[in-house]
Amino acid sequence: MSGDGDFGLLSPVSASPAVVALTGDRAVIAAILDVEAAWASVLEEAGFAPAGSAAVVTEATESWAYDAASIAERAQGGANPVIPLLADLRGRVRQLEAGRPGGPIGAFAAVHTSLTSQDVLDSALMLLAHRVLSALLAEVKGTTTALAALAEQHADTLCVGRSLTQHALPFTFGLKAAQWFHGVAAAARRLEALELPVQFGGAGGTLAAGTILTEGSSSSPFALADALAGRLDLAPVPAPWHTNRLAVTGLGDALASLTDSFGKIASDLLFLSRPEVAELGEPLAAGRGVSSAMPQKQNPVLSVLIRSATLQAPGLAAQLHLAAANFNDERPDGAWHSEWPALRGLLRLTLGAATQLRELAEGLRVFPEAMRRNLEISGPLLLSEAVASSVAPLLGADRGEAKAKLQSVVDETLQAPAAEQARIYTKLLREAVPASKLSDEELQALLDPANYVGEAAEISRRIFAAYPEFTHTNLKGTDRG
Amino acid sequence: MSGDGDFGLLSPVSASPAVVALTGDRAVIAAILDVEAAWASVLEEAGFAPAGSAAVVTEATESWAYDAASIAERAQGGANPVIPLLADLRGRVRQLEAGRPGGPIGAFAAVHTSLTSQDVLDSALMLLAHRVLSALLAEVKGTTTALAALAEQHADTLCVGRSLTQHALPFTFGLKAAQWFHGVAAAARRLEALELPVQFGGAGGTLAAGTILTEGSSSSPFALADALAGRLDLAPVPAPWHTNRLAVTGLGDALASLTDSFGKIASDLLFLSRPEVAELGEPLAAGRGVSSAMPQKQNPVLSVLIRSATLQAPGLAAQLHLAAANFNDERPDGAWHSEWPALRGLLRLTLGAATQLRELAEGLRVFPEAMRRNLEISGPLLLSEAVASSVAPLLGADRGEAKAKLQSVVDETLQAPAAEQARIYTKLLREAVPASKLSDEELQALLDPANYVGEAAEISRRIFAAYPEFTHTNLKGTDRG
Amino acid sequence: MSGDGDFGLLSPVSASPAVVALTGDRAVIAAILDVEAAWASVLEEAGFAPAGSAAVVTEATESWAYDAASIAERAQGGANPVIPLLADLRGRVRQLEAGRPGGPIGAFAAVHTSLTSQDVLDSALMLLAHRVLSALLAEVKGTTTALAALAEQHADTLCVGRSLTQHALPFTFGLKAAQWFHGVAAAARRLEALELPVQFGGAGGTLAAGTILTEGSSSSPFALADALAGRLDLAPVPAPWHTNRLAVTGLGDALASLTDSFGKIASDLLFLSRPEVAELGEPLAAGRGVSSAMPQKQNPVLSVLIRSATLQAPGLAAQLHLAAANFNDERPDGAWHSEWPALRGLLRLTLGAATQLRELAEGLRVFPEAMRRNLEISGPLLLSEAVASSVAPLLGADRGEAKAKLQSVVDETLQAPAAEQARIYTKLLREAVPASKLSDEELQALLDPANYVGEAAEISRRIFAAYPEFTHTNLKGTDRG
Amino acid sequence: MSGDGDFGLLSPVSASPAVVALTGDRAVIAAILDVEAAWASVLEEAGFAPAGSAAVVTEATESWAYDAASIAERAQGGANPVIPLLADLRGRVRQLEAGRPGGPIGAFAAVHTSLTSQDVLDSALMLLAHRVLSALLAEVKGTTTALAALAEQHADTLCVGRSLTQHALPFTFGLKAAQWFHGVAAAARRLEALELPVQFGGAGGTLAAGTILTEGSSSSPFALADALAGRLDLAPVPAPWHTNRLAVTGLGDALASLTDSFGKIASDLLFLSRPEVAELGEPLAAGRGVSSAMPQKQNPVLSVLIRSATLQAPGLAAQLHLAAANFNDERPDGAWHSEWPALRGLLRLTLGAATQLRELAEGLRVFPEAMRRNLEISGPLLLSEAVASSVAPLLGADRGEAKAKLQSVVDETLQAPAAEQARIYTKLLREAVPASKLSDEELQALLDPANYVGEAAEISRRIFAAYPEFTHTNLKGTDRG
Repeated sequence: MSGDGDFGLLSPVSASPAVVALTGDRAVIAAILDVEAAWASVLEEAGFAPAGSAAVVTEATESWAYDAASIAERAQGGANPVIPLLADLRGRVRQLEAGRPGGPIGAFAAVHTSLTSQDVLDSALMLLAHRVLSALLAEVKGTTTALAALAEQHADTLCVGRSLTQHALPFTFGLKAAQWFHGVAAAARRLEALELPVQFGGAGGTLAAGTILTEGSSSSPFALADALAGRLDLAPVPAPWHTNRLAVTGLGDALASLTDSFGKIASDLLFLSRPEVAELGEPLAAGRGVSSAMPQKQNPVLSVLIRSATLQAPGLAAQLHLAAANFNDERPDGAWHSEWPALRGLLRLTLGAATQLRELAEGLRVFPEAMRRNLEISGPLLLSEAVASSVAPLLGADRGEAKAKLQSVVDETLQAPAAEQARIYTKLLREAVPASKLSDEELQALLDPANYVGEAAEISRRIFAAYPEFTHTNLKGTDRG
Repeated sequence: MSGDGDFGLLSPVSASPAVVALTGDRAVIAAILDVEAAWASVLEEAGFAPAGSAAVVTEATESWAYDAASIAERAQGGANPVIPLLADLRGRVRQLEAGRPGGPIGAFAAVHTSLTSQDVLDSALMLLAHRVLSALLAEVKGTTTALAALAEQHADTLCVGRSLTQHALPFTFGLKAAQWFHGVAAAARRLEALELPVQFGGAGGTLAAGTILTEGSSSSPFALADALAGRLDLAPVPAPWHTNRLAVTGLGDALASLTDSFGKIASDLLFLSRPEVAELGEPLAAGRGVSSAMPQKQNPVLSVLIRSATLQAPGLAAQLHLAAANFNDERPDGAWHSEWPALRGLLRLTLGAATQLRELAEGLRVFPEAMRRNLEISGPLLLSEAVASSVAPLLGADRGEAKAKLQSVVDETLQAPAAEQARIYTKLLREAVPASKLSDEELQALLDPANYVGEAAEISRRIFAAYPEFTHTNLKGTDRG
Repeated sequence: MSGDGDFGLLSPVSASPAVVALTGDRAVIAAILDVEAAWASVLEEAGFAPAGSAAVVTEATESWAYDAASIAERAQGGANPVIPLLADLRGRVRQLEAGRPGGPIGAFAAVHTSLTSQDVLDSALMLLAHRVLSALLAEVKGTTTALAALAEQHADTLCVGRSLTQHALPFTFGLKAAQWFHGVAAAARRLEALELPVQFGGAGGTLAAGTILTEGSSSSPFALADALAGRLDLAPVPAPWHTNRLAVTGLGDALASLTDSFGKIASDLLFLSRPEVAELGEPLAAGRGVSSAMPQKQNPVLSVLIRSATLQAPGLAAQLHLAAANFNDERPDGAWHSEWPALRGLLRLTLGAATQLRELAEGLRVFPEAMRRNLEISGPLLLSEAVASSVAPLLGADRGEAKAKLQSVVDETLQAPAAEQARIYTKLLREAVPASKLSDEELQALLDPANYVGEAAEISRRIFAAYPEFTHTNLKGTDRG
Repeated sequence: MSGDGDFGLLSPVSASPAVVALTGDRAVIAAILDVEAAWASVLEEAGFAPAGSAAVVTEATESWAYDAASIAERAQGGANPVIPLLADLRGRVRQLEAGRPGGPIGAFAAVHTSLTSQDVLDSALMLLAHRVLSALLAEVKGTTTALAALAEQHADTLCVGRSLTQHALPFTFGLKAAQWFHGVAAAARRLEALELPVQFGGAGGTLAAGTILTEGSSSSPFALADALAGRLDLAPVPAPWHTNRLAVTGLGDALASLTDSFGKIASDLLFLSRPEVAELGEPLAAGRGVSSAMPQKQNPVLSVLIRSATLQAPGLAAQLHLAAANFNDERPDGAWHSEWPALRGLLRLTLGAATQLRELAEGLRVFPEAMRRNLEISGPLLLSEAVASSVAPLLGADRGEAKAKLQSVVDETLQAPAAEQARIYTKLLREAVPASKLSDEELQALLDPANYVGEAAEISRRIFAAYPEFTHTNLKGTDRG
């Protein structure tokens, strides 16, 4: 049974155990301890800590039951969780040393030497982010693969394109899926390209303690920093970035950009799966979409949860920028502290939403007949742009006059009852253009929505070609050549 | 030892057990169960549930070990924690009924009948807010009492008033404390005046199920709603507010306004307790303000933590407005879900920051000599506005010319080295005004900062008079009469 | 022809001349000048400026062609538009004095004496807000009156209630309009109750210059402040609020709350006017809703513009809180300056959106047949909550078992093709309940959506009763008595 | 004299004519017209418009006095400024055609053919951004060059490093300037690397009209898009991005990141130029920093204005993400419209702030003596980390015990009056370490802050080496080798 903490009760989008395992307080503690253990190895390897120290420190990080609630509470003292955690770690190291068969080896020297708590926490949060990103990109690639498959499968599935909520012109569901893919892949590529840097600057960012430590040796603080980066699989850096938070804001922006792309999809889904529209359906699964009061309801809860996340991510990314813009002195007076929950929150929401989206994309139900039915609501009027493009040149040299004539055909049609509009529009159009310039067959072809989807297939092909690492499918493009 | 959840590790401002107890997942679950138990009582009392039902339901809410982590995880199914919690509650009621000596009484009928999950969650979050607000206002009144005492004690303590970071004119620390009080008291009064409403609208907000339930009885859905409000100490309402979120945004705005007032104080503190300024000091306490690397440091961690909260609150309040503006249909498709973490987050940050601020206000160390020393940095130039006001009329009818003359005295003074400016300014001023119009004694009095604090004392008195419920002190005002 | 400034090209929601006239740079300049002119009158009346001064200053404010672009540019020098505007005003006063037939009267003494630029700008922005609010509330009352009329007219118009995008249960369009009214009226009442305070504190908030000015007179700085408030129709205050920005954030919050209520309506409209739904239509007007490429389109541009505003207001309100939380010293180092564009932006967006919404509400086209048609998509399943409430008690004492039985009826129905579900559900239900407990007529009545709209009419009546100042209609309530 | 629009009166940070010229409504109109003119050239070149058309269209865009206020107002009709502007452009083209000596050539065909208004507006805003970025990067490079020079000049200027407002350890002003440079250069590099894409998708993003246009030709819609990109110096794209707004959010994020780096500098400046600190001063210039009430004041207005911008940028960047996450359908119902003012606002604030920052960096006044004086406030205690690092190993094998001993020296010192602490700390330290292990000379050297600046110089060198394009200086690095 669970204890006293938070488990995502009020944020169901990311309440899964997998997300909690990667982003919870325990995961933060683990990352901090991993940084300290890696540092012990770096120190020992460079000769600045006794042989065997790193093993003791590593054992300390692994064998001790750290109490997250207690550390959190004690973090109030120094405004920072590293301080109490370090006290516990040092206590554990001392204990292990004391109990060591061969006697203490001085492993204490390998704990946190020359570091400051910002070095540890910045590096630990980058490490945490690194782990979340691995999981996140796996989910995302599941999603993009599924979307690419949908795009291929529905390359010829006609639907209506909508703008400002109204029917605009014919579209294909294949292109819709391809553009969803486009949004996700472009954002994910940016996320994948991020460099998550190690932090090492010492108390004020001068590396002063590290300089003393390495004095007279063949090493340097920069070499130690690079070695730490290597051990943690983080990016090495030219200089400490303790007061320049581009690494943090860049990560936040990339996460928000990814959730933006999720939000676009969820917005579409939430409309397209409404009973009046019914072009799409969320995957059916036991327990998904239930209501406490209405037995018949099947709610699109995946989309709802994704949307709830995408409404929150922009504010969290802004929080990181606000912190960065207030990073006064060599360590700021509150801005840094406001960064942590926002960064963790973003990682958590994005991973949670990515998981829901993958389930959604992999099980999406598509109803081409409903797409066709909705397309036909607008009848041939949906082709009025096509008509304007194709027919206007047949009506004489004055393009403005031609456009006006065709607009009046549309306007007159719109006066009629909806059920009559298809017939009237066709009739008026027939009257407006001499059959010598446009035969009946040509007119009919012109008013067939399937003939006015433009480059839908080729656009899809180009999108997939631009993001090969996000798809396994090979869409057959329609070459214009 | 703590389990797998979050305990505030990355948000130390609110990581205290007291805050966790009032705002954690357990507190949310408790509030939800309290709503269901109160509803059972309402139903039984109105004759819509068997006698004894409420006792069974209440026992069920109290005797069962609800598993927050499991409920959170299962909340993904319906996008809402009430649904799985209700399933567990019903299971527990059935269990109790089964084990009842006299056999089942049909208590199941008292669980959630005619409610929808939004009724329960909205009411539960208002109940949670109600509990947090009680604790919060107690902290706030501790703070305002302390600030009022500081204001009284330092009514005559001279310091410098600053604008755009520069010395502006003489000030008193008493007025500074009074204005801090002013900010906190005004915001807290607004918070205290809030009405936290009960929610009861049923599945779509028509009270349809409640109508059926009460049909033919002397009761009505509105009467049941009022009874529920009475039991939960929430405000009754004329109508369901399921899609009009002013109660939620109003609460969020009031909380953000309160943290704004905290932020103003923290900003001042963080500057005034710097070593170069040293006018104020945070209370000294064991374990407060420690650093992981620098043994000598005494960080103003209370102010740092408060500031970290005040940088976050505006974004959370905005999140609530964003949700409110997107409340489509009779229950929205993600906006409602994005409200929960923001509202809880705001409650948590505000309560955490209020606790820190009270500790700060009650133990604030004030250093009048440093205030005086800093005041003197600017020397008599600090009185240049006073000089302009008092001396300009002595220089002839043309006020513009007089101002220009005095500005040139200032400008010439500013050319001199800082150490010389006091002497030079006084000399130039002496030369500019005939002694017949301004004696040496008068000039000296004019350049005494203690003579140019205006209505500092009276302003303070008026502030305290305007917010009597927030102070126990009686500041002696200086009547102008 | 227009000059070089901004006219709302990229913010069409508020690009009307009426909005520009109330919120543009000229309006700000006019408000600043009105404050200075009112102050001159206050000074003259209290005997602190020569008789006739106020007339000269007022003439100066009215007879001079202030150059907004030049003032804006020169505002960079002191980070504040009052300083250059004041220089121009003083120049104009000097000019008028010089040209005065009877010679100068010393009107210069009435310009800005004892004020600081924050006094003027804070008061001027409150004055500007006051003017905007008058216009805004007129628009809002036009809207609420129209909504109340719609609610009355459609009290019995059946539609479907939706939650999480899906059909939930029967609803009426009357209640929908009543709840829209509810949201707008509740937020507008809060806005109407706001007190917009005058500011007078002098350079550092001590009223020092005012103290000197009034020394020995029967007046006081507080009396002058009250007189200024009276002349500007602003609220008097107990004390300067130069560093406590609740007046500003409270205004911002109230504006955002109002746009939230607009956003809820726009969200609904944008869905309900889609071709697939077609329950509502925006008013038809020449030039509204046109597209650059698609001749047949009729876009819901009013709703689109309203929605564009409601997506922006929360961020602007948050900006005001952020500023308030950073109001360090006696005047802050950037926070105050970040307040101005956000406050003006909010006023402008809200007024713009209110204008669009009034046009929308007054001309809204309602299509009851479409509402009925959409309602019928869900068939009798829409009544499954009603069935659960009414039928479950007929199925024996074990409420849980009864619920499970009815859920299985629903689940079995949902397996069938959509077209069959109505028939199957009715049949299965008939089989589940003995006719002795529920006659065929009773069953049929139970499945009639018109019989399951609960308290829709009474809720509407209660809403209108709670906000009488926002409606002229008298909805006939359905008393339960 | 200026007309009715906004000129930045309430946003002085960007109220300069240079900023207005690049970002005002006229600049937007110019960019829209440039897109239409470029498109006419593309069409003519590809044979889809009569020879000479482009010249007529270009003349129309240049010879006509577009009325921004009128276009803005008419933009309400279609929720979009392109529509009325296009109407005016077409009118002007017709006029020119009518007046053409040789008679009309059908230039009308070259106006907007196959485009939709989103193609034009998206491309125009990218073009506008492109122009702003050129100016912005010039300002930024002025700033970075100045910062690099400061860093070189002050490589050895000792100051104190501060964390959480308190003295942490010795620092150099050179490193401070280098880290400021670091922040700006890293953000600016990201901005410089941005690709600003052309938009061409047609009414629904299918390129349908373009397909018809190019049918049977050797061209294609993609070729036309690339040609348009070439003419506008925008980036070509694989596919329309009308619903995937990464280009917009990426631009916003990069701008916010740059202002973050400005904000860090301004925060530091605002503290360091306070009278109590006086380590830095803004450049003195006539009219800069004046106050309306206090003649002696010299406000750091450049920093104040920069800070006002950096408090606003995060919210505007978030607005863009929020829009992106709500981009429903093939063109959204309000989200797109909420993007425009936010994007323009960000460009404007960033350019304005960059201009102020350059003036600040190029004229910054540095006061090394004040830095030294402030450094000495903390006395040798400032070296307590250094002492802990160097001395602890001399105190025996048990590092924990050694640390505790040294902490007790610090704690005992802190009990003494401030004036005594230097002497007492040195004495206690001397007693704690045997002279055999640390000579008096060594102890003295240890307590010299100049000996504990670590890698300050080398970090600076590495920073400049990493961003060569942002500096013209060659810092001599101190090689460790």
